Amino acid sequence: MIKVSVLYPNGEDKKFDMNYYLEKHVPLVQGKLGIALKKADVDQGLSGAGPGSQAIYLAMCHLYFDSVEAFQNSFGPNAKEFMADIPNFTNTQPVVQISEVKI
Amino acid sequence: MIKVSVLYPNGEDKKFDMNYYLEKHVPLVQGKLGIALKKADVDQGLSGAGPGSQAIYLAMCHLYFDSVEAFQNSFGPNAKEFMADIPNFTNTQPVVQISEVKI
Repeated sequence: MIKVSVLYPNGEDKKFDMNYYLEKHVPLVQGKLGIALKKADVDQGLSGAGPGSQAIYLAMCHLYFDSVEAFQNSFGPNAKEFMADIPNFTNTQPVVQISEVKI
Repeated sequence: MIKVSVLYPNGEDKKFDMNYYLEKHVPLVQGKLGIALKKADVDQGLSGAGPGSQAIYLAMCHLYFDSVEAFQNSFGPNAKEFMADIPNFTNTQPVVQISEVKI
C-alpha cells in the first residue's frame, strides 16, 4: 500500500478554505479516482508541538492506493482538473510526497 | 480526534533506520502511551510527486489521540525518553505538527 501526502504549507497571508475542500474538492477527487483510491485522510493544522506555536501545514491530505502505478494511472488523467480547482480553496502551493505504508 | 504528525526531513547525509524504528522506537512509544494512543501510522518516503524526485521526508509518523489534552498528558511525561532514543535511528531533526482529524 502506498500513500500520497498532499501538504499545504502555512505562511504569511496563506489561507485554506476547509469547508470548500471537504464539500467540493475531496468529493471531486474521490469521484474521479473511483475504486483506485482506497482511503483518504484529511487533517487541519492546529499548532506545532508546543502550545501557541504555528502549524507548518494548514492542511494535509493522505490518499491511499494499492501501488504507485495505481496512483499514476488514476490520478494522471485527472491531475489537470484537480490542480485547476486548487485556487478555489487555497493560495498556498501544495507539496506532494509518495510514501510506502509501513504500519 | 487529533493527530500528532512527526515528520523526519530528508537532506544531504540524512539517514533513517526504519528497522530500528519499527522494532524498537514505535513499540517503546506504544508501550508508554498505552490506551491514550488510539492508532499509529508509519510511512517511509519514496519520492516526490514525479518519478525520481526526492521525498521531502524520510519518514512520517502519525499518532492519533482523542484530544490535545490526552496527547499532552500521556506524551509529556515520556517526551524526554522518546527524544533520547531518536539518535539511535536517525540524524535528522523531526518536525511536529498537531492537527484536527477532519476525515
